[in-house]
Amino acid sequence: MQFQAGPILSKIQSPADLRKLSPAELPAVCHELRQFIIDHVSVNGGHFGASLGVTELTVALHYVFNTPDDQLVWDVGHQAYGHKILTGRQDSFHTNRLLGGISGFPKRSESEYDAFGVGHSSTSISAALGMAVASRYKKEFHKQHIAVIGDGSMTAGMAFEAMNHAGDIPNNMLIILNDNCMAIDPNVGALKEYLTDITTSHTYNRVKDDVWNLLGKMSKFGKSAQEIVSKIENGLKATLLKQSNLFESLNLRYFGPIDGHDVQYLTTVLNDLKDIPGPKILHCITTKGKGYSLAEKDQTLWHAPGKFDKITGEIHKKTFDNPQPPKYQEVFGHTILELAEQNPKIMGITPAMPSGSSLNIMMRAMPDRAFDVGIAEQHAVTFSAGLATQGLTVFCNIYSSFMQRGYDQVVHDVCLQKLPVIFCLDRAGLAGADGPTHHGLYDLAYMRCLPNMIVAAPKNEQELRNIMYTASLDKFKEHQKAITIRYPRGAGVMPVWRTSFEEIKIGQGQKVLDGEEIAVLSIGHIGNEAEIACQKAKSLGMNPALYDMRFVKPLDEKILHEVFSTYNQIITVEDACVQGGFGSAIAEFMLDHGYNKPILRLGVPDDIIEHGEPHELYQLCGIDSENILKKIADFYPNKIKSASQKVNQD
Amino acid sequence: MQFQAGPILSKIQSPADLRKLSPAELPAVCHELRQFIIDHVSVNGGHFGASLGVTELTVALHYVFNTPDDQLVWDVGHQAYGHKILTGRQDSFHTNRLLGGISGFPKRSESEYDAFGVGHSSTSISAALGMAVASRYKKEFHKQHIAVIGDGSMTAGMAFEAMNHAGDIPNNMLIILNDNCMAIDPNVGALKEYLTDITTSHTYNRVKDDVWNLLGKMSKFGKSAQEIVSKIENGLKATLLKQSNLFESLNLRYFGPIDGHDVQYLTTVLNDLKDIPGPKILHCITTKGKGYSLAEKDQTLWHAPGKFDKITGEIHKKTFDNPQPPKYQEVFGHTILELAEQNPKIMGITPAMPSGSSLNIMMRAMPDRAFDVGIAEQHAVTFSAGLATQGLTVFCNIYSSFMQRGYDQVVHDVCLQKLPVIFCLDRAGLAGADGPTHHGLYDLAYMRCLPNMIVAAPKNEQELRNIMYTASLDKFKEHQKAITIRYPRGAGVMPVWRTSFEEIKIGQGQKVLDGEEIAVLSIGHIGNEAEIACQKAKSLGMNPALYDMRFVKPLDEKILHEVFSTYNQIITVEDACVQGGFGSAIAEFMLDHGYNKPILRLGVPDDIIEHGEPHELYQLCGIDSENILKKIADFYPNKIKSASQKVNQD
Repeated sequence: MQFQAGPILSKIQSPADLRKLSPAELPAVCHELRQFIIDHVSVNGGHFGASLGVTELTVALHYVFNTPDDQLVWDVGHQAYGHKILTGRQDSFHTNRLLGGISGFPKRSESEYDAFGVGHSSTSISAALGMAVASRYKKEFHKQHIAVIGDGSMTAGMAFEAMNHAGDIPNNMLIILNDNCMAIDPNVGALKEYLTDITTSHTYNRVKDDVWNLLGKMSKFGKSAQEIVSKIENGLKATLLKQSNLFESLNLRYFGPIDGHDVQYLTTVLNDLKDIPGPKILHCITTKGKGYSLAEKDQTLWHAPGKFDKITGEIHKKTFDNPQPPKYQEVFGHTILELAEQNPKIMGITPAMPSGSSLNIMMRAMPDRAFDVGIAEQHAVTFSAGLATQGLTVFCNIYSSFMQRGYDQVVHDVCLQKLPVIFCLDRAGLAGADGPTHHGLYDLAYMRCLPNMIVAAPKNEQELRNIMYTASLDKFKEHQKAITIRYPRGAGVMPVWRTSFEEIKIGQGQKVLDGEEIAVLSIGHIGNEAEIACQKAKSLGMNPALYDMRFVKPLDEKILHEVFSTYNQIITVEDACVQGGFGSAIAEFMLDHGYNKPILRLGVPDDIIEHGEPHELYQLCGIDSENILKKIADFYPNKIKSASQKVNQD
Repeated sequence: MQFQAGPILSKIQSPADLRKLSPAELPAVCHELRQFIIDHVSVNGGHFGASLGVTELTVALHYVFNTPDDQLVWDVGHQAYGHKILTGRQDSFHTNRLLGGISGFPKRSESEYDAFGVGHSSTSISAALGMAVASRYKKEFHKQHIAVIGDGSMTAGMAFEAMNHAGDIPNNMLIILNDNCMAIDPNVGALKEYLTDITTSHTYNRVKDDVWNLLGKMSKFGKSAQEIVSKIENGLKATLLKQSNLFESLNLRYFGPIDGHDVQYLTTVLNDLKDIPGPKILHCITTKGKGYSLAEKDQTLWHAPGKFDKITGEIHKKTFDNPQPPKYQEVFGHTILELAEQNPKIMGITPAMPSGSSLNIMMRAMPDRAFDVGIAEQHAVTFSAGLATQGLTVFCNIYSSFMQRGYDQVVHDVCLQKLPVIFCLDRAGLAGADGPTHHGLYDLAYMRCLPNMIVAAPKNEQELRNIMYTASLDKFKEHQKAITIRYPRGAGVMPVWRTSFEEIKIGQGQKVLDGEEIAVLSIGHIGNEAEIACQKAKSLGMNPALYDMRFVKPLDEKILHEVFSTYNQIITVEDACVQGGFGSAIAEFMLDHGYNKPILRLGVPDDIIEHGEPHELYQLCGIDSENILKKIADFYPNKIKSASQKVNQD
């Protein structure tokens, strides 16, 4: 649904329009912008709290800086709705996150104002530094480069790597630390405590206004004034602001903390900072969800609440007559707790996704055995490895696309050491509305090539539970291998899912449907689409067999010998990239064992898959039940016509 | 060659023996240990400067702590020779880095004293924290956990992630910062400057001994004394040691800096620190190469100098009558400079490997266009992406196995944004004596599954130059794709290699040898082994054809249609993991185009490949020329006997 913007906002089609306003009008712009976001997100869904929290910052940045010539890089990007609305996307904002609509994240191909595409955290300083160094090299000295990064993103090592570099080379980059004490869940770690210390320091607060007033006055008077500013900084800061030394020790000039919701003060400060050379950091304190009181109060819930009634704050939940299948993440969350209650060796690790992974269920019940380590995938993996060396049974839950950030640690610290860490990869496959940055498409390829790595994907809730159970058994450690268990975002297929645990033999698949001539081999949840397709095919007089392989590595050789000896055509189905994935593993088996059969590999094609509803994306990739059915029908020439007709009628 | 240890050292077969000595005897142990390392490395080769630099630290740690019950984690591990010699591997030290001998790095399967396997940097804090948390959970409160990490490794974000976590949870971990201002090349970045500031602070140096004396006395008197210690720390440190705030702000108690070569003082300090609870960091200043003056002076050269005359310091170089092929890295280093001299858009990036990658050639000539960003692969990739958004032509050179650490950034910041970054992956394939942590075996699999990624591997120097040239052309940017160019450690095959540049069509391979019946398809440098094999085969009356495919992605479809239409048996050869790699890509092509031929995929098997000379490892994996020849001969049943006989005679 499309809403009309307020009277001032509706005239702002680009930041140039914004800059025509007087500073006194900016609070009204903020109010209308916030309202516009609330109107749309309440009806269309999407990320919520983060954009509300940076409304003033967004307005001030576009007011002060000459975007897009000045380059503004948003970290993570789920907070950039205000930015999108101010930069020409007011009229398309109602298409946010819909197939064919604008992306929920900044995207270079969408707008020249989106200086860098984003979705994962902690990339902004590196990217902005690259731009700043390029500008300097090209002698474009007028250009400003700004990275806006949250305190949650600051915990990721990548941000530290970038600051270490930024503080060491000439550049004028401005880092804005948007400190709201939150990742999606409350931020964790020593850094958070440190930032809170700065903010609450009485000595500091007493003098900061004086410092700012001085700085403000001085910076207007060119170079000699800058030297004075520099002296004031050195003098005052060394004694009064010594808490700021974390950033200062990396040679980043530290300013703040200031109130990130005072838009007029923000513009003053940002204007002053424009004239101060060298890398610098401005610490802004903001409230996630600002301006919508419920969102301010429960910030995790309102990070991305889904659709809601903006007046009552009631979040719409679909109601059903019958019990519905749970989300896979919930199955993980409840199952790890069930297992841990029986098995004192079990520990749970998440890098900043307690609510997203549902590890929070175990964290609440067993705070000494389940850890949120912050946005820190590299550390999460090696910390898990460290725990595993001591004989503990470690479940490390990381979204599939974020696991790319811990890849070396999986190779170097887990697989090479044969440590039996259990990696649960949530959000594997097509992640839906979050789009390409969040799709987990490469995990089968990048995991199955590693030695000492088992790769599994459950077709349903029961299989997830049973594979988790199997990996948690002491005898699993005898394999001296790690295991990857990947499953998708969203719901499974079993309304009654709390089944009793049953061990699964590692590498054992199962036949789902008998058949002849054609065998469909599926891996993971997408096997349900394959099953629907096969059953429809049977109802149309075709007779494909279906196997749920469950493991990409090791493969079920017994089943595969049967398959390649029995059937004349193989179809593989996976919700992962077709190069190097499950289908390729099947092809390798065939060649290594001297079989010679045609294999049709269905999966995600070698291209960027945009955002949209999962079922739309399945369709787009040709791995929904209807497309699978069409592919099956292709091998029954005499049935094609009737099957196609039937498919098209459905 | 095996050397006899000195009289004291020869009696130390385990740390228990060391602990029987009086503190006064420790300097002599250090002297003998250093001598033992010099004796062996001068004759057998290996890492040199790093182990000399931590000799005192090594002795002091094993003297004070109850290893292996107390757990000692070495970061990177190339400095652990002294540790190995003191922990039961004195008699096998002459087998260091040889096939079947001990590893040049700590390795859990080699010794219970090697608490965590290592090779890549910056994992030690995460691993030791995992162990410390496990011990606490298991109520093994007596156990100590120590991570020894260099200042170079501290620049990697992973170390920061781990400190952020360590400072936030209860544990007694001790981090020892071994500060020698070096990675392999001189350390870079703001952190280095900061550490130097601490060390040279006059105020600080004036008082540090007093502080230590106090701490030493206090810590002996139990809990109430600990409170006093705490007060002294807070009081003195806040005013005098405020430079230490980087670590203190992460809630790690900071101690130091102290002289890391005063072994008796080290034992005193380490003993004191045992009684101080909570996470803490001891800053030790050491000199890389300490005790061998040439190594102290040119620390990069003596990081791993090869064999040398320990008296004169002359490094042995093989001499040849004829000109020899250059190392691939040298071809990269000279070629990027040649290209950059003609093309002002070219920039070069390395994460801490200026000498290892030979980017130092460009860094010396063009310091504003070639950057060492520190041990920071994640940042290196996204910084490159940032530069590329501004139209620059960026060569980002990262060792293949280290690129695993920038994988998410390749996916998220480069491929999804279609940025034409040029990744040069040195040390691809079997890296030799550095062993499993340094082999670059997975790159073909983990890169070719990504959209918008071209994957190339040159067979020789000329191809490397031409692919680099091709990627540097402005028109390459029209592909809107990144490119991976992977090449091995060590020398190529062309003594005369400075050929003139010639553009290569992206995705174009070439026929090397005509033939019939059998086609061998190779990728990259290993193609030279394939070529020798094919030529020998021909001399034995067989007639395989050979194709150098040059690209894994996109594949040369013209060649492949020819191959699959013409030959009855395909053999693929790669020096990379066989799952999901080059051979699998060929299999995918075959299946996708309806061909049906047997493919024998030769490559690195799905196992951990240990250290050894590259040619030994090629043999082990069956991808040296003789093994390839045997495989070819298998397909000529009537020639098998004579071929096998011939092979065995050679």
